[in-house]
Amino acid sequence: MRIELPHRSERFGAVRIHGVQEVWELDSGGEPAALEDPGWQSIHHVPTATINDYERRMAIVIPVMGERLKVLDGVLSGIPHDCLIILVSNSERGPVDRYRMEKETLRRFCRLAQRSALLIHQRDPGVAAAFADAGMPELLDEEGLVRNGKGEGMLIGLALAQLSGREFVGFIDADNYVPGAVYEYVQAYASGFHLAESPFSMVRISWRSKPKIQAGRLFFNRWGRSSQVTNRFLNLLISAYSGFGTEIVATGNAGEHAFSLDLALRLQFAAGFAVEPYEYLNVFERYGGVITSPDDDVMRDGVEIFQIETRNPHFHENKGADHVQEMRLQALNVLYHSPIATPDVREEVLEFLNQEGVIGEGEEPPQELLYPPMSVVDWDTFGRVLGDKSESFRQIEQVRPSAVERQTPIPDIPDSESKG
Amino acid sequence: MRIELPHRSERFGAVRIHGVQEVWELDSGGEPAALEDPGWQSIHHVPTATINDYERRMAIVIPVMGERLKVLDGVLSGIPHDCLIILVSNSERGPVDRYRMEKETLRRFCRLAQRSALLIHQRDPGVAAAFADAGMPELLDEEGLVRNGKGEGMLIGLALAQLSGREFVGFIDADNYVPGAVYEYVQAYASGFHLAESPFSMVRISWRSKPKIQAGRLFFNRWGRSSQVTNRFLNLLISAYSGFGTEIVATGNAGEHAFSLDLALRLQFAAGFAVEPYEYLNVFERYGGVITSPDDDVMRDGVEIFQIETRNPHFHENKGADHVQEMRLQALNVLYHSPIATPDVREEVLEFLNQEGVIGEGEEPPQELLYPPMSVVDWDTFGRVLGDKSESFRQIEQVRPSAVERQTPIPDIPDSESKG
Repeated sequence: MRIELPHRSERFGAVRIHGVQEVWELDSGGEPAALEDPGWQSIHHVPTATINDYERRMAIVIPVMGERLKVLDGVLSGIPHDCLIILVSNSERGPVDRYRMEKETLRRFCRLAQRSALLIHQRDPGVAAAFADAGMPELLDEEGLVRNGKGEGMLIGLALAQLSGREFVGFIDADNYVPGAVYEYVQAYASGFHLAESPFSMVRISWRSKPKIQAGRLFFNRWGRSSQVTNRFLNLLISAYSGFGTEIVATGNAGEHAFSLDLALRLQFAAGFAVEPYEYLNVFERYGGVITSPDDDVMRDGVEIFQIETRNPHFHENKGADHVQEMRLQALNVLYHSPIATPDVREEVLEFLNQEGVIGEGEEPPQELLYPPMSVVDWDTFGRVLGDKSESFRQIEQVRPSAVERQTPIPDIPDSESKG
Repeated sequence: MRIELPHRSERFGAVRIHGVQEVWELDSGGEPAALEDPGWQSIHHVPTATINDYERRMAIVIPVMGERLKVLDGVLSGIPHDCLIILVSNSERGPVDRYRMEKETLRRFCRLAQRSALLIHQRDPGVAAAFADAGMPELLDEEGLVRNGKGEGMLIGLALAQLSGREFVGFIDADNYVPGAVYEYVQAYASGFHLAESPFSMVRISWRSKPKIQAGRLFFNRWGRSSQVTNRFLNLLISAYSGFGTEIVATGNAGEHAFSLDLALRLQFAAGFAVEPYEYLNVFERYGGVITSPDDDVMRDGVEIFQIETRNPHFHENKGADHVQEMRLQALNVLYHSPIATPDVREEVLEFLNQEGVIGEGEEPPQELLYPPMSVVDWDTFGRVLGDKSESFRQIEQVRPSAVERQTPIPDIPDSESKG
């Protein structure tokens, strides 16, 4: 992958946010970068072998909730072979058992592509028990199950990525029509981690275009609808501290993003659709230098955030206007209640929500649920309880012809990638 | 790339047409195929390094005619780095000089991506003179220029690919919205050539889906409109000789296809939009064993045709109904007039064209123009005349001279643009 180096970066305490970087070539060839003349230009060549090295150390989490199986199957085909697939489903399990269909789709894919995957249902009592016993009961609702919501599904994915021993975790939505875009996202994640100097890094995808159907033809929007609002307010927060207006944040709502696990396990995550914008916010809260940071090592090495503008258009299933409104509001709720939100920022949030008719005069936006960092989890306990009690968890191993799917007790997970 | 092996193949004389093969993974990893157990399953893993080896030996020809520059730029970004780009434009050169804009787009891309490309205008008097002097004056119209038409643009691209010393040539349309699909097409070409046992091979892309806007939403068509008709009639022709009905041909109109130059230079091409279906027909005519073949070596080794169903949807600019009607009819015209069309096939073609209201009772479809095989061309003369007389031809070189082998044996190209 050939990728622009960031033209500018903004600092927020120990956090460096790099400006959007364009992708120039999906495949920039196999020759090592040493052949290039460094400094001649601001474009960086990440050789195929380097990308492959990161893929081997990366898990890709796909949160699923009722997406069409044909679309899911396409998404799977776009994930590079050496990544571990982790599918976290919150699909219906009634008389029509969509989870079972997803399991069959994944199992068939893994058999034909000879690869491994982890699979779990979000509402599995076993994963709830594992979180409760391992020190993170906050994830559970009154039924004693992991709460519904995208953020919660992502946290299950993070936990499985940690158990699998991978060092990086990337998220890919299951509703993407373009397998080639999925492939490009993972290449971009790998390129970002390659560029990072800090072990605490995040890579977020910015779409070049998001096609919409307008008046019977395709129109290539530059921005998704809710992104504009989220980005504007995150930039406002940065400006409030730096004293300089900025447009550096372009990926506030990015569903496609990736972390080093070293960073992800230290962060708090928000419930539901607030999850993605709150990743920015929590990084600012913890490492922005406004309030004291609990993590000396991160303060020393710093956090790096990369924003990569991919080449493929983002064609995905249309979830409708309600979904967008919900996403937009949850982002502003967490911002309003952030301990680092300045009075000016709070005022602007209120004004906006007021204009939109979402809250009345004198009302405050609701609090969103925030979870503690996953570093509190006792992983031995988590693995043991998950292995003992989970009903839906599957570890699909497909490396040699004799290998068949088996339900593996969790302690085996770190060994699951070995090609026996 | 992980790709299904063909479930079935049909023979037509020395021609083997392999059934459609699905792509299972865009990137099946870097490990060599030797780890697999051959015969265990019908899926073949083509390692990244193998694909890269074919890319280095491949030229990609992009016929351009007024497509939007943003879309063209995306197409360029999807072509793997080690392929040579050959852009053949028939865009307007009036007061608004679109060719010049295309040249600037290509030059900027090559500078930033540090790669090489060839570029020419179809109506350049120099390329016409080169064809005339080198033994192929049939390409010229009454103005003494290479005729307008997609087939003619492709032939210029073939000639440049031959001059560049590459062994394979692939075609990619310039109107594709999805760079990741372009990338996948080239991977599929490379995988097909890797699977081929004969040096005389062709790889054609079958789309999994071709999205259309219907009633304000996307509908994923299985087949393009004109493809259904073309495929039906090509299959009818095969059945007429084999005595067995068949649906083997699924890529009659494939704009995305590739040849070994060993095969391409021996084939006749048709003018305009008949070009793609006629590739099948001419292979049948020459090597089907119905009439005597001029090429003993090809009859001995056989011709292989691969049809690969890619994963990405084919999102492209809508050229409208006229375009489709035109394509469909030209395919049937060449079939009707083929020396190997049986009376039954001719009858069915007439009946269909009659029902469609295209020709009246007792009328015959028009003849399409067919060109002689490019093997008649004297390449030394072609290169010399092109170098002397061409106005628009550019060879963009953007790699440090020491870093790359020069592949282009055309000695004196004026205004050759090398990186300073």
